[in-house]
Amino acid sequence: MVRKVTIKDVAALAQTSVTTVSLILNNKGQRFSAETIARVRAAREKISYEPDYFAQNMVNKETKTIAVLVPDINNPFFSQFIQGVEEVAYQYDFIPLIYSAGQNNQKVNYYLKELVRRNVDGFILAVSHIEEETLEGHLKQRKIPYILLDQSEKQHQSDEIAVADTEGGRMAANYLIEKGHRQIGIVLPEQRAWNIEQRFIGYQVALVSHQITVNPDWQITTPLSKQGGYQVAQQVIDSGVSAVFAVNDELAIGLARGLAELGHAVPESISIIGYDDIDWCEYVTPRLTTIKQPILALGQEATRLLLNRIEKPTLGMQQKMLSVELVERDSVQAQ
Amino acid sequence: MVRKVTIKDVAALAQTSVTTVSLILNNKGQRFSAETIARVRAAREKISYEPDYFAQNMVNKETKTIAVLVPDINNPFFSQFIQGVEEVAYQYDFIPLIYSAGQNNQKVNYYLKELVRRNVDGFILAVSHIEEETLEGHLKQRKIPYILLDQSEKQHQSDEIAVADTEGGRMAANYLIEKGHRQIGIVLPEQRAWNIEQRFIGYQVALVSHQITVNPDWQITTPLSKQGGYQVAQQVIDSGVSAVFAVNDELAIGLARGLAELGHAVPESISIIGYDDIDWCEYVTPRLTTIKQPILALGQEATRLLLNRIEKPTLGMQQKMLSVELVERDSVQAQ
Repeated sequence: MVRKVTIKDVAALAQTSVTTVSLILNNKGQRFSAETIARVRAAREKISYEPDYFAQNMVNKETKTIAVLVPDINNPFFSQFIQGVEEVAYQYDFIPLIYSAGQNNQKVNYYLKELVRRNVDGFILAVSHIEEETLEGHLKQRKIPYILLDQSEKQHQSDEIAVADTEGGRMAANYLIEKGHRQIGIVLPEQRAWNIEQRFIGYQVALVSHQITVNPDWQITTPLSKQGGYQVAQQVIDSGVSAVFAVNDELAIGLARGLAELGHAVPESISIIGYDDIDWCEYVTPRLTTIKQPILALGQEATRLLLNRIEKPTLGMQQKMLSVELVERDSVQAQ
Repeated sequence: MVRKVTIKDVAALAQTSVTTVSLILNNKGQRFSAETIARVRAAREKISYEPDYFAQNMVNKETKTIAVLVPDINNPFFSQFIQGVEEVAYQYDFIPLIYSAGQNNQKVNYYLKELVRRNVDGFILAVSHIEEETLEGHLKQRKIPYILLDQSEKQHQSDEIAVADTEGGRMAANYLIEKGHRQIGIVLPEQRAWNIEQRFIGYQVALVSHQITVNPDWQITTPLSKQGGYQVAQQVIDSGVSAVFAVNDELAIGLARGLAELGHAVPESISIIGYDDIDWCEYVTPRLTTIKQPILALGQEATRLLLNRIEKPTLGMQQKMLSVELVERDSVQAQ
């Protein structure tokens, strides 16, 4: 290999010290004369010196890197969210690091620790459960910027972006009620992240405000995945509901498949509404009626808020709520 | 903020120089006496000094980080591939960095440049086109370990992992022929990566070996996505084929949706076989018959080969080929 040009070569050529060169090339050379600065820059130019990333980092402490922790990269919701992040990061010359941490708190801790050591400039935390002590220990104490996705802002006192999930849950249940349904089930995970809990609350509010008693037998818990939805098809049939709100699209699509295999066609036998509006909604049969989250915008906006915070650490708390909308397709039928 | 304990504090306590401490704590202190080494380690222990990542890196030049470049994180194939990577990386205490680079050669170059600057230990390159000069300029000259996924090994002379794509293409077309089809189309992108080209060759070999003339009108080009498949439904109908090999599952699923909307049900009117076996095959209607790639194993194995290479730079060239298999579901009917 060719010997790498080092900062020492620049210093020798400019007839000054390594420290002087380092400060000037890292834009911390205000105390030097214009003449010295010009000499150092010319020397650097002449021998095409590229500052070593790690040496530079020790002075600047900015890595132009943000980390994104998601629970499940296999969920199309998160792959689209990441696209939004990458678009904005690329635009501002930041490198995003993506991690799929599962439901595994140990893995979240591991990634946070390792990434903090690597001086990542900030974090987008889209994992569904994050403990206050994890935030406190890894990020708050060190004043590392981060933004939470879909977490309770009251609990954490952090920059946060969320969607109007209570409204979304209400919208989903109201739509089924408008279509004449009265026995309305909900399929959701047992361990509920904050945003899922909001959808559940919205569903309950809608039922109660239409004088429908919320029946615990209509609440069916299962893992948040296609497979999870598929597995509870028989339970949904047994519950006697005529319509179901599945709290995400993957659940809804798995459930529709399970019902069809048991001879209960959707929507003729049971109606289903999902949540998210992943692109697959258009490609399954029946096409899925759902509550649309602005997924791409969510990724873009989360990144903008984080970059804001990195730029201006003393900014007031940033909290943003994006709205949702109903997308009617073919999976709900009037009762 | 509390003042951070630095290497200077350790040196002061151990009554030695910063350089000595740095070398000893980075396991490069062989030339010091056992007594000095013990004194430095005790001092570090006493004041709980955590070496600064970047300072440490300047000595060690190993970041325990690998970068993974994929063309499209939205394709479930790649999100599953990444899962395989993460499993093995986590096991060996490496941090994987994931990038979705699109079909954009400029973005591939940008990510490679920035990541090389950050001293990433190695790369898994799963982007569909990578130019020899890109590899040469960013990686080969600097002797940075990398592994190519689904690229022509002859062209690049690199560590490489691939699947038996020619065999897969042959298998797909043979299956349709066995089912009595004689007019067999293929849907594929115009710009073909090496692996897609192999599938195309396999399809042609199967037809020819059954005395079926390969008809250019049966070759329909479109972008490699659900939307791409959806868009060419009318063209497929017009071509007069009774069965189609779509070179990936997303294409196949989009096409099936498009055909159904035009009143040509799959498989009653036209049969379809896909490629990949993404988990969605089980959740679309009809369930998709396909050629299964060992996606998770591919991610795991790629990572193992790369970590091997990082560990032993002088190892002989590693080239591995994984096999494929037919998965029969409901999208192909006997003619």
